[in-house]
Amino acid sequence: MSIDFSNLPSACDDIRAIEAGSRSVSDVAHRLLERIAADDEHVEAFIHLDRDRVLEEARRLDTSTAQYRGLTFAAKDNFDTFDLPTAYGSPIYTDNRPARDAACVASMRLAGGLLMGKTVSTEFAHVHPGATANPHNTAHTPGGSSSGSAAAVASGMTHIAFGSQTTGSVIRPAAYCGVVGYKPTFGHFNPSGMMANSPSFDTVGVMARDTSDIALVHAIMAAEAFSDAAAITMKGARIGVCQTPWYDRADNEARASLNRAARHLSTEGAQIIDGDALCQSIGVLDELDAISARVSGYEFARTLAHERGHHMDALSDALRQGRMQTGFDTSHDQYASDQRALETKRQQLDTVFDSVDFMISLPAPGTAPAGLQRTGDPIFNMPWTSLHTPSMTLPLFRGENKLPLGLQISSRRHTDRKLIGYAHSIVEVFG
Amino acid sequence: MSIDFSNLPSACDDIRAIEAGSRSVSDVAHRLLERIAADDEHVEAFIHLDRDRVLEEARRLDTSTAQYRGLTFAAKDNFDTFDLPTAYGSPIYTDNRPARDAACVASMRLAGGLLMGKTVSTEFAHVHPGATANPHNTAHTPGGSSSGSAAAVASGMTHIAFGSQTTGSVIRPAAYCGVVGYKPTFGHFNPSGMMANSPSFDTVGVMARDTSDIALVHAIMAAEAFSDAAAITMKGARIGVCQTPWYDRADNEARASLNRAARHLSTEGAQIIDGDALCQSIGVLDELDAISARVSGYEFARTLAHERGHHMDALSDALRQGRMQTGFDTSHDQYASDQRALETKRQQLDTVFDSVDFMISLPAPGTAPAGLQRTGDPIFNMPWTSLHTPSMTLPLFRGENKLPLGLQISSRRHTDRKLIGYAHSIVEVFG
Repeated sequence: MSIDFSNLPSACDDIRAIEAGSRSVSDVAHRLLERIAADDEHVEAFIHLDRDRVLEEARRLDTSTAQYRGLTFAAKDNFDTFDLPTAYGSPIYTDNRPARDAACVASMRLAGGLLMGKTVSTEFAHVHPGATANPHNTAHTPGGSSSGSAAAVASGMTHIAFGSQTTGSVIRPAAYCGVVGYKPTFGHFNPSGMMANSPSFDTVGVMARDTSDIALVHAIMAAEAFSDAAAITMKGARIGVCQTPWYDRADNEARASLNRAARHLSTEGAQIIDGDALCQSIGVLDELDAISARVSGYEFARTLAHERGHHMDALSDALRQGRMQTGFDTSHDQYASDQRALETKRQQLDTVFDSVDFMISLPAPGTAPAGLQRTGDPIFNMPWTSLHTPSMTLPLFRGENKLPLGLQISSRRHTDRKLIGYAHSIVEVFG
Repeated sequence: MSIDFSNLPSACDDIRAIEAGSRSVSDVAHRLLERIAADDEHVEAFIHLDRDRVLEEARRLDTSTAQYRGLTFAAKDNFDTFDLPTAYGSPIYTDNRPARDAACVASMRLAGGLLMGKTVSTEFAHVHPGATANPHNTAHTPGGSSSGSAAAVASGMTHIAFGSQTTGSVIRPAAYCGVVGYKPTFGHFNPSGMMANSPSFDTVGVMARDTSDIALVHAIMAAEAFSDAAAITMKGARIGVCQTPWYDRADNEARASLNRAARHLSTEGAQIIDGDALCQSIGVLDELDAISARVSGYEFARTLAHERGHHMDALSDALRQGRMQTGFDTSHDQYASDQRALETKRQQLDTVFDSVDFMISLPAPGTAPAGLQRTGDPIFNMPWTSLHTPSMTLPLFRGENKLPLGLQISSRRHTDRKLIGYAHSIVEVFG
C-alpha cells in the first residue's frame, strides 16, 4: 500500500461538500469503509468495527440537521462507548460493554460526527503493544499507545481519531504515522469515560490529516462555533529550539530534521532562540524523567487495583515489572514531594514561554523503529505531558527509509489556539 | 432511633479484636447488617445492598489472611463496583453494571476490607437529592452529595464510607451527620472508576467515626504500612480562624461554635491567628465562588455530553437549568483564564499556610436544614476544594436542636498526615 494524503478529503472538505449538496454522509462512509476493507487486514488499526452500524448511522445523519455531517472519527479503545465494546487494550476486558460514551466521543456525536469504530490501544495505554502495524511500512511499529488511532488516520480510514497521552502516546504515534497530532493543555478536553492510566498526566488528544481539522475538533470539544484559527506568520515569531537533556537518544536523521526546521523557519523571518539554554538556566527539565516515572508509576499501580486483585496473571510482564513496580517502590511522601516539584516546574516553564512564542523539538528519536514488539521511546514527549503544555506534531519530513519524521511544537499552558495558528503557518511554509 | 457512637467499635477496634481471636469478620458483618435491618428503612442510606453477598464475603475473609480483616466500608454510588450496580444517583443508570471496581474500592478489598454496599448519591453527585434522611432526625437532610455515606457511617451501618467532593459533598454531609469527614489533597486518592462531575475539583473522600480510622484508610490508599499518625499537640500550634467572605450565610449558632473552638484551642496553648486578614491581604478568596462555579459548570456540562445526547429528559431541572447552564454560558477563553486564576490562588494559599499550621472554619452554615429537598449550602467547603487543600470535619458540637455541628480544619496541600495528626489532638482536647 502507498500512503498519499493529497487526494484524501479532510473532514472540513467533506463537511463543505455535504453542505453544498454534492456529497452525502453515506458517500463518505462508503469511501472510508472501502479503505478499511482494502487495508485494515494489513494495518489492523481497528479493534471494533461494525460496518452495518456505520452505514446505518450515516443514513440517519443524511436525514438529520446535525451541524458537522460528514465528520468521521474513531476512538482509541480506552474511551468508553455505549454501542461498541471497550477493552482498554487488555484481554481482561474483551467483553466489556460500557453504559455511556466518553465525553469526547459523545461531544463529537452531538456535533454530527460519525463514529467509525474503536482503534487498537496498547495494554491500558501503557507499553505492551497490540497488533497494529505502521501503514507506511507494516514491518515497523505505528508507535503507541494510541497505535490504531494514528494508523487509521494515516490510512485514510477516518478523518479524526482520539488518543490519550500519559507520556508520549499521541504525539509519538502521530509522528511515526505521518499525521498531525495534538495534545491539548492538560484538562482542556474532558477526560470522563477515558480509562485512567495516571490521572495527573492523562490527556485526551486527537489526530487528523491537517491542522484545520484539529481546530474543528477543538471547537467541538469547547462547544463553541468553529472559526478556524488564523495562521500566525513566522515573521518575528520567537521560536525556541529545545533539544532537551535526552538528545543523545535521537538519531542523526532526526537531529538533522530539527536543524533543518530551525533554519527554514529562520529564513521565513522567525527569530531562533536557544530553548535549552532557557530551560537549563532554571533547571526546569532536570530530573523530570525520574520524577514523571515515579508519579506515573505511583498512580498507575493504584489505578489498576481491581486488576491486581482479580486478574494479575492477565497483566503483561512489561506492566507488572515495569511501571507498576516503580509505583510500589515510590513512597507516598516521595509522591507528594514529586507533585510539588512538578507544579514548580510548570510555573518555571511558563516563564520560559515569556521569552519564546513556541518551542520546536523532536516528536520522537527518529522514524518508526522496525518491529511490532516495541512502540518506541516517548522521552521527547514526556516534558510537555508532565508539564501540561499543549503540543502538536506536524508531518513535515521523511527519513531515508521513506518513513515520516515530524516536528513537535509546544507553547505555554492554555495557549492552544495560538499554537494551532502557528501550526497552520508552519505547515504552509514547509508545504 | 438514637445515635450514640460511644458503644460502636471503630474499624481499628474490630480489626484488633479479630486479630486477637475474640471476634470474627462474620460477627462484625452480622452486627452491621442488624443495624441496617433496624434503621435503614428510615434512613435509606443504602441504594444497593446484598445481604447474602456480605455474609459470604465475611465467611471468605474469616478463612483468609487478609491484612485488615474486620474493616468494613461502603461506597457512594458514583464509584464503580464489579459486583453491585452503580447508578450515579440517576434513573438513567439504574441497571448499570460496571466491569471493574473503582480504585479506592479495589484497594480496600485488597487490604481485606468488606464492601457492605453502595450508598445513595445525589444525581451525578450534584444537588438533586436522593431518599436518604439524616439519622439524627429523619426530617432533616443528611447533606449531599455523599448523603448515604454520611448517614451510613453515622448510623453504625459501616465503619468507613467513601464519598466524593466537587464543592462540599464530603465535608458538609459528614458535618450534618456528625461523623469525621476527610477530603485529601486533590489527587492523593486515585479517582479511577469514580464517575466524573468536574475533573479539576473531583476528589475522593472518606468518612469514619474516628480519626484513627481515617488514618488507616490513608495508609491503605497509599499502599503503605499503617502506623497511626501521632497526635500533634495544640501547644504552640498556629491556628488561623477563617470566617471566609461568605460568613453572613452562617447562622448564629454555627458562628458561636467557631468562636468556641478558637477559645478552647487557645486555652490549650494554641496561637490563634486572624486567617481572614491573611487571606484578604492577598485576595486569595476574592471571586473564588464565581470562578469555581464557572470552571465546574464548564466541565460538568461536557462530562454529561452522553446524557445530553440520549437522556436529556431524565436529567433534573436543577441540573439542566443550574450548573449545566452556567457551563454553557462560560466560554473556553473564560475557562482557561479561570484555570490560571485558580492556580495562582493555590500558590497564594500555600503562602498563607506559611503563617498558620492549619485553618479552622465552618463545615456548613449551621446544623442540617429541615426537609429532604435540599442538601444545604456548600459555600464553606468550596475554597478548600477548589484550591486543593486537605480538609477534615470533626464532630465536636451539637446545636440546640441536638443535631451535630462540626469544625472544619484545612492545611497546606500535601500535608495530609500532619492534618490528621492535628485532628487526633483536637478531638482529644474537646473529648
